[in-house]
Amino acid sequence: MRDSQTFVQHLSEALPYLQKFYGKILVIKYGGAAMHQASARDAFIRDLVLLRTVGIKPVVVHGGGPMITEMLTKVGKTTEFIHGLRVTDRETVNITEMVLAGVINKGIVASINRAGGRAVGISGKDGNLIEAVKHMPRMNGDDPDRPPEGIDIGYVGEVHKVNPEVLLSLDEAGFIPVVAPLGAGGEGETYNINADTVAGAIAAALSAEKLILMTDTPGLLRNPKDHTTLISWITTCEVDSLRSRGILSGGMIPKVQACQTALAHGCKSCHIVDGRTPHAVLLEIFTDAGVGTLITSHDTLEDLISQS
Amino acid sequence: MRDSQTFVQHLSEALPYLQKFYGKILVIKYGGAAMHQASARDAFIRDLVLLRTVGIKPVVVHGGGPMITEMLTKVGKTTEFIHGLRVTDRETVNITEMVLAGVINKGIVASINRAGGRAVGISGKDGNLIEAVKHMPRMNGDDPDRPPEGIDIGYVGEVHKVNPEVLLSLDEAGFIPVVAPLGAGGEGETYNINADTVAGAIAAALSAEKLILMTDTPGLLRNPKDHTTLISWITTCEVDSLRSRGILSGGMIPKVQACQTALAHGCKSCHIVDGRTPHAVLLEIFTDAGVGTLITSHDTLEDLISQS
Amino acid sequence: MRDSQTFVQHLSEALPYLQKFYGKILVIKYGGAAMHQASARDAFIRDLVLLRTVGIKPVVVHGGGPMITEMLTKVGKTTEFIHGLRVTDRETVNITEMVLAGVINKGIVASINRAGGRAVGISGKDGNLIEAVKHMPRMNGDDPDRPPEGIDIGYVGEVHKVNPEVLLSLDEAGFIPVVAPLGAGGEGETYNINADTVAGAIAAALSAEKLILMTDTPGLLRNPKDHTTLISWITTCEVDSLRSRGILSGGMIPKVQACQTALAHGCKSCHIVDGRTPHAVLLEIFTDAGVGTLITSHDTLEDLISQS
Amino acid sequence: MRDSQTFVQHLSEALPYLQKFYGKILVIKYGGAAMHQASARDAFIRDLVLLRTVGIKPVVVHGGGPMITEMLTKVGKTTEFIHGLRVTDRETVNITEMVLAGVINKGIVASINRAGGRAVGISGKDGNLIEAVKHMPRMNGDDPDRPPEGIDIGYVGEVHKVNPEVLLSLDEAGFIPVVAPLGAGGEGETYNINADTVAGAIAAALSAEKLILMTDTPGLLRNPKDHTTLISWITTCEVDSLRSRGILSGGMIPKVQACQTALAHGCKSCHIVDGRTPHAVLLEIFTDAGVGTLITSHDTLEDLISQS
Amino acid sequence: MRDSQTFVQHLSEALPYLQKFYGKILVIKYGGAAMHQASARDAFIRDLVLLRTVGIKPVVVHGGGPMITEMLTKVGKTTEFIHGLRVTDRETVNITEMVLAGVINKGIVASINRAGGRAVGISGKDGNLIEAVKHMPRMNGDDPDRPPEGIDIGYVGEVHKVNPEVLLSLDEAGFIPVVAPLGAGGEGETYNINADTVAGAIAAALSAEKLILMTDTPGLLRNPKDHTTLISWITTCEVDSLRSRGILSGGMIPKVQACQTALAHGCKSCHIVDGRTPHAVLLEIFTDAGVGTLITSHDTLEDLISQS
Amino acid sequence: MRDSQTFVQHLSEALPYLQKFYGKILVIKYGGAAMHQASARDAFIRDLVLLRTVGIKPVVVHGGGPMITEMLTKVGKTTEFIHGLRVTDRETVNITEMVLAGVINKGIVASINRAGGRAVGISGKDGNLIEAVKHMPRMNGDDPDRPPEGIDIGYVGEVHKVNPEVLLSLDEAGFIPVVAPLGAGGEGETYNINADTVAGAIAAALSAEKLILMTDTPGLLRNPKDHTTLISWITTCEVDSLRSRGILSGGMIPKVQACQTALAHGCKSCHIVDGRTPHAVLLEIFTDAGVGTLITSHDTLEDLISQS
Repeated sequence: MRDSQTFVQHLSEALPYLQKFYGKILVIKYGGAAMHQASARDAFIRDLVLLRTVGIKPVVVHGGGPMITEMLTKVGKTTEFIHGLRVTDRETVNITEMVLAGVINKGIVASINRAGGRAVGISGKDGNLIEAVKHMPRMNGDDPDRPPEGIDIGYVGEVHKVNPEVLLSLDEAGFIPVVAPLGAGGEGETYNINADTVAGAIAAALSAEKLILMTDTPGLLRNPKDHTTLISWITTCEVDSLRSRGILSGGMIPKVQACQTALAHGCKSCHIVDGRTPHAVLLEIFTDAGVGTLITSHDTLEDLISQS
Repeated sequence: MRDSQTFVQHLSEALPYLQKFYGKILVIKYGGAAMHQASARDAFIRDLVLLRTVGIKPVVVHGGGPMITEMLTKVGKTTEFIHGLRVTDRETVNITEMVLAGVINKGIVASINRAGGRAVGISGKDGNLIEAVKHMPRMNGDDPDRPPEGIDIGYVGEVHKVNPEVLLSLDEAGFIPVVAPLGAGGEGETYNINADTVAGAIAAALSAEKLILMTDTPGLLRNPKDHTTLISWITTCEVDSLRSRGILSGGMIPKVQACQTALAHGCKSCHIVDGRTPHAVLLEIFTDAGVGTLITSHDTLEDLISQS
Repeated sequence: MRDSQTFVQHLSEALPYLQKFYGKILVIKYGGAAMHQASARDAFIRDLVLLRTVGIKPVVVHGGGPMITEMLTKVGKTTEFIHGLRVTDRETVNITEMVLAGVINKGIVASINRAGGRAVGISGKDGNLIEAVKHMPRMNGDDPDRPPEGIDIGYVGEVHKVNPEVLLSLDEAGFIPVVAPLGAGGEGETYNINADTVAGAIAAALSAEKLILMTDTPGLLRNPKDHTTLISWITTCEVDSLRSRGILSGGMIPKVQACQTALAHGCKSCHIVDGRTPHAVLLEIFTDAGVGTLITSHDTLEDLISQS
Repeated sequence: MRDSQTFVQHLSEALPYLQKFYGKILVIKYGGAAMHQASARDAFIRDLVLLRTVGIKPVVVHGGGPMITEMLTKVGKTTEFIHGLRVTDRETVNITEMVLAGVINKGIVASINRAGGRAVGISGKDGNLIEAVKHMPRMNGDDPDRPPEGIDIGYVGEVHKVNPEVLLSLDEAGFIPVVAPLGAGGEGETYNINADTVAGAIAAALSAEKLILMTDTPGLLRNPKDHTTLISWITTCEVDSLRSRGILSGGMIPKVQACQTALAHGCKSCHIVDGRTPHAVLLEIFTDAGVGTLITSHDTLEDLISQS
Repeated sequence: MRDSQTFVQHLSEALPYLQKFYGKILVIKYGGAAMHQASARDAFIRDLVLLRTVGIKPVVVHGGGPMITEMLTKVGKTTEFIHGLRVTDRETVNITEMVLAGVINKGIVASINRAGGRAVGISGKDGNLIEAVKHMPRMNGDDPDRPPEGIDIGYVGEVHKVNPEVLLSLDEAGFIPVVAPLGAGGEGETYNINADTVAGAIAAALSAEKLILMTDTPGLLRNPKDHTTLISWITTCEVDSLRSRGILSGGMIPKVQACQTALAHGCKSCHIVDGRTPHAVLLEIFTDAGVGTLITSHDTLEDLISQS
Repeated sequence: MRDSQTFVQHLSEALPYLQKFYGKILVIKYGGAAMHQASARDAFIRDLVLLRTVGIKPVVVHGGGPMITEMLTKVGKTTEFIHGLRVTDRETVNITEMVLAGVINKGIVASINRAGGRAVGISGKDGNLIEAVKHMPRMNGDDPDRPPEGIDIGYVGEVHKVNPEVLLSLDEAGFIPVVAPLGAGGEGETYNINADTVAGAIAAALSAEKLILMTDTPGLLRNPKDHTTLISWITTCEVDSLRSRGILSGGMIPKVQACQTALAHGCKSCHIVDGRTPHAVLLEIFTDAGVGTLITSHDTLEDLISQS
């Protein structure tokens, strides 16, 4: 009975958060440990169903790194690198699409459905959700006296345009959309796109309430080797400053860029959270302290302060 | 952090109940200690707002006993009794209406609104919600050789018909309806009606998912003096048997009748719960054990067993 | 047959008014003789039902003066006065709420319903209709060398904000809303507010077609003692001029202020009419001459002239 | 002022009728004096606009006899008769269509629009409203030993089927439909159909509340030469009896047949009224006495009696 | 089989045009040979039904010249001319209305319905579609020293205002509207209006995608006597230039004016096509070459070029 | 010009078919040559877009045989056979899902989108579209004296239930759904299901107008080696007879079963057509002769005959 009292007390404490986020869209990049570790995964899937049930609307964008590599190995595909970047030829992008849109996407959908939710999995090609263009990275070693040239590393794409109608239809019909980070180019060719980037672009297109990026670190760290240097709250300006000082490590750069894109298009707040923590998403939404790092635009920060 | 984990774990455990009751109507008779004791009252009000926020639809019917007596005393109104029944003359019913529809009803509304909900208070006269007829109790000492005659104890009414349109409009607009247990007779005269009876009739008219009657006892007791004899689950047949054996005390009779009316018209289950327990309503809805006494029709009982 | 011809001739004459006011909102302050005199009251109630039936939408705000005083006397409550203003302590405001929201409001509702209409009675606390603040009157005798101070006369309120959603929902569902002039303050405390003021604020919030204030005088009089000095039509500017010259008596001041508030927020015209005249509201709406005093803003006046 | 009081008193007396007929469909056959006499016509047109304004839905079916004859004469068309029936050849039906659908229909529409209403005129060919078949009258002098044969009198039609969608669309968009009594046959050929018959068939297809046939007599008369023998109320059974006794004169037969068709398909009551009386339609709808003859089915009569 | 392949190949080639015009409104002036020649008429009627079936929305405005003259002759009406203009007295306009709204309009409707479409025929008087004013032509020989005076040639009208609600209601209900080119003046009087002018005004009011005027010539000709001088594409500026140089013959002037009116109010393109060519409308819509003359505004022309 | 005339003539001939199939659902099993041969594939994709544009609603179910085998070979997966049936272990079903839901499904979607359509690709796991159970084939050589036992050949499934909500939502939003033939079992495990079977079950669940199965043969043949023995029209009864006589070859059996399932649940007609013929689907829908074999239920056959 005592436990029951604590239980209903906790439900009651959730009220202000339920009121605040009712009907709002959360775009969640799902990946890393939360995808591979059984207990974190189960908790995450149940969290999605819970959110939809109480009227909050999650849109899931997933990654799939290790499984792609595994499959490439299986088919005996060796990967070429140019200046340290993996070249994605047509066969590689086909394998990537198979793994992302074929197995991982449908696996997440089946898990949500088994937990009593109703999910539909699509890729960025469905309903023209993601119009993509080729990503042409520039090399650091480019001759500064020559015009910079992008390098063709194949079917790695950037988001050119988001057409969110298919997400809105699924949302209206009560489904949780699950999105594989692929897009179609102008000739119908397939591009693999960074999942954080896709999540950011979708959050921007939907003016989502929150963008939540799940990682395998506690969040942004001032010193990547020291977890006690976690940054709880940071503005986009300060992020720029960290980047220019070289403090942000490679993998964090597309994440903070995704946050900056989302914030610039009306998304209220962005979160980099540790997917290894069970129920990390609920902790982020239903507690004031939150978890991981909160990124806001300069304006929003001031708004938040003036409200408190 | 440990506490946060317990907290989100609890939210997660609420999922099956949230799914089960989404969009369902709960008719709640609110009265007794839950109305007068500050902490139980605050918890109850927050529970109502929580339920509406997560898509469950409470309809509140309130009582008001002690405050009516207090007001009658204040205006120097002495009450006549016939065969132990209080005679309700026009002045008494006017005072009753003032207290119920004027102060108590609007007080509950204001509390819900302050807790972030949106409530609208009406009486059974609004929108013709409750069409009433005079209640004519029969005396035990009636001459068995003569046709039984009801006794006129004034403006005490029975529910003749429920017109639930006003509740449905408020519900559709997102308001929590709060109902004072009064009704209008054919000549427009006001009747005071037992709040449990009104709640039962409304639950019947709306085919509510649950009827919850809040009392100041733990539930139905086999021995009213011994709280350890609480009946957790009982069918309407067995209730009849208890009544015929004289085990049910006076105040419980209108309650079990209200439950039987509701069950006979499609309400799924009825609950007599202890309003002194904080969050009694949440405990009832969000735990399997529930609190107090569950009353179901014979059929439902079998359904419930066959499902488990 | 001759009578029948006159009858249908009259119906036919109503056509231009029916066309003009179809679908429009009329806010009506109901009080005085029209509330207490049987024949004027019955006619008024039937007029409301008629208006709703032909597609015109009345919103009724009622007062309740004498009945409140009567009830205060009954409970032995003596009233304190400061500088001639009645102090409204918590017990007084409770009695006021009881009488207004409990008895009078529900009595009007029951009368409309008996006449074949469908009414729902609410107070300004329902659905947060009226957010109130304390009214702090200033004294004439204030030391001009000191900063003016308001006097605390208790739970007498001003309208801070109107949230008309509950009126719109009831309206859409075909109900006639009947409003008791009370409001809730920031702490949930109840305030009694002048009914003319509430009617004016609601007419403003709804941009009503007309605000009709029923009184027990023929309208605005240039000489309050001489009924032949009735002002048929006046603009808000001229009202200001009358006020500054001290021609408007005490009770008229909140009425003309209510009209000015309504006109300033898009209400087309305001009327102060004599509630003792049977069918005063119909006379106002369905005849060119109208009854009582018409108040319009300067602009509207010019529009009306240019149209004729 | 005294007149104004009578005026609003009259409006108030209309309330029960307004409530009873709100949203109901009235099919009105318009013809005879009400079409040709200026004052009766103007009153009728205004009555239509009044009915639509207060939420009652008239559908007008018009005739056009004299104007057709006049036009036939003008073009020098002589009419052949067989056994006393006018033969309608293609040229005759073309002239008929021109007059009915071209001039009369559009004239009524323009009058309604000028009176502030919104009318749309169609013929039975529009939207396939009336599917017609050739009318083949049988002769009394047919040889009883030979199978009866219909006589081909050309493009005179019967109603085969009514497709009321076009009326319902116009109705929903707030227009008053005005119908010329023509229909298309299976080969697209045009048929002229008796306007009473068309009105009856439309009233049947729409299950109209009332069918009102305007004539130039006071109603059904027991003795056609004696206006004091007006039948106020008659059932369809009694109508059959009158017909079999030869009491109904020629022109009345299609009228009572139209009423019987309408009543057999759910129309509540049928009325044969004197179009020479100004506002005859309003008198019928807004007074208990009505005007002319009321025809009901046997069942309805009993219902009406049991309700009173 | 070979034919079938060509057939489905052709359907497949229609795709880009079906996509481009889906849901768009086409206003078509129907007249001349396409109305009188059996095969062109049948093809045209089927084309209308086809367009509506594939989601393109035709609005038909028809003329009726020769049939009106024929009818006037039949009734022995001689026509007066002033300065070469036909004077339309009341009898003439009545005959005109009869023929246009009575016979021709309903004939087109019946043809469409027989072809499996659903048409409703109205005139410009229905639903106040066309508010008309008297057309007062000015004479070339007017004394230049005197203020110019229009000549009263009777009931010949100009379009004053278009109220397209009735077209929109019919359209929404899935009907093809067929419009007779008449209008009502301020006093309810009927005006005959040039059908091209009406079509242009309706295309303007609906911001139609296309206005198609069917004629009995191949289109605009630089030399009216030489069909090889057909102008395929011309802008409104160039049209003005042709007019000022006197190249446009009399009948073409109202047509090009109708086009200019439509283009000035958002209609995308106007077409003058040869109604003698079977399926001229389909050829115009479903082929790039089109038929006849395309008139666009200067801006649109540039848009079209920049797109190709 | 002559060609243009033939072209629009053909469009015009399509009218009766456009009218007949407007708004109807066609379920199309897409596979074989139509998927692999460039010109047939391009024609098919355009046909889908054409159908949706003219208001006919295709639902595509695709197969993927050769590509799956190719991928299994690539990853070095050898396939075990039991009694001639391929055993589908977890790795095999994963590869199958990758190819079907990952590459083929998204490839079709991208092609439709490039052709100007709007497609969304899902698998039977999305929105719980296909609830599957394990397929347990029985062996011919089973000991007739022992109870028959199914053989476990792994993740090959049967359709247990179809939940078509996701198809209906996509349809309502204007998308063409493209379905990969997979389903989820009770434990969330993936099953590969025969695409013809899935198409039949979906046609049944949607009571589709037509089920069209594309194959690489001309249709059902009385003698599989002789294409001149094509059966144009056959009833389900006769199909049973053919099967019992062993005339139907292996691959045809699931096809005719799919047709029988669809017909038994309200699908009007089923078609087995040769996907190698360009525009086979259009030929089937827009010509009376059709292509391939038409299968109808006995009842429908009689209906069709009685209609002609």
